[in-house]
Amino acid sequence: MLYLQKMNLKKYIQDIPDFPKPGVIFKDINPLLANPEATAQTINLLAKGLYGFNATKIVGIESRGFLLGILLAQKMGLGFVPIRKPGKLPGKIEKQTYALEYGEDSIEIQQNSISEGDLVIVHDDVLATGGTAAAACELIEKCGGTVVQCNFLMELGFLEGRKKLGNYALHSLIHY
Amino acid sequence: MLYLQKMNLKKYIQDIPDFPKPGVIFKDINPLLANPEATAQTINLLAKGLYGFNATKIVGIESRGFLLGILLAQKMGLGFVPIRKPGKLPGKIEKQTYALEYGEDSIEIQQNSISEGDLVIVHDDVLATGGTAAAACELIEKCGGTVVQCNFLMELGFLEGRKKLGNYALHSLIHY
Repeated sequence: MLYLQKMNLKKYIQDIPDFPKPGVIFKDINPLLANPEATAQTINLLAKGLYGFNATKIVGIESRGFLLGILLAQKMGLGFVPIRKPGKLPGKIEKQTYALEYGEDSIEIQQNSISEGDLVIVHDDVLATGGTAAAACELIEKCGGTVVQCNFLMELGFLEGRKKLGNYALHSLIHY
Repeated sequence: MLYLQKMNLKKYIQDIPDFPKPGVIFKDINPLLANPEATAQTINLLAKGLYGFNATKIVGIESRGFLLGILLAQKMGLGFVPIRKPGKLPGKIEKQTYALEYGEDSIEIQQNSISEGDLVIVHDDVLATGGTAAAACELIEKCGGTVVQCNFLMELGFLEGRKKLGNYALHSLIHY
């Protein structure tokens, strides 16, 4: 099968200069998602190092983290739990606020989506400053879960997000 | 395998009264996503009727439509294309504005994500009034694609969204 050949996944990630604002180079993963073989290989590679963690759930962060997050969950036979922007999740929720470059933002999780003893993999498409992922880890811990890995498709090394996630195992597939 | 037994999928969709506003009963699909067997069976059932369409792409609508949409795309070996809220997609985009109960909203697609001749399945989690799905179909047609099916996990029949999508083949798995 085509996707068992080693592909250069960076080829499917497109640089978009000055998006969403001047001076920022946006990494567009849509060409990767548009190619089913590249997507399948990405999931295979992301899952490869994960089986040893005995994880019980995959958490994906809205909204691009939903995409590879749920594929990873199905690949590993695990349940998927969404972390969403404020006001989107019904029922009892936990909320975490975190600092942005200017201002702050919040994310939420359903309280009953994570149980005491759950071993959780947190997935997002990109590790930038690490603020969102660190907030996601706090949410999971508030619910009684343990984060066993922070998992990313891409890591923007120059933003040093790794420092903010120093307490966690961390894996990213593609480095910039 | 467990998921080959027929499951009652409605059991995994929870009614949340008065969300997001009083008088509305929200259908929460998170219990379904949290159960990998129920998710797998959902995708099998959604995919079942789709192979005859010779579709070339699956479009998922942000953000809950991303979840089963990309699973469906991988299941069928097709590329996935996101339709997103305004300002989220980089590059050249098409935008479509549509009416809400009060006011209006817009969605966007990348122009180059759909090519002339593409046969497209549009997926979203729920068919309510049909406004978003109709706008999604218009976006796909603006890009030169043909919508071969509008595909939903759930349909809220009393909102009569089907009427707004009268020109398209339509399939929903769970009816309320």
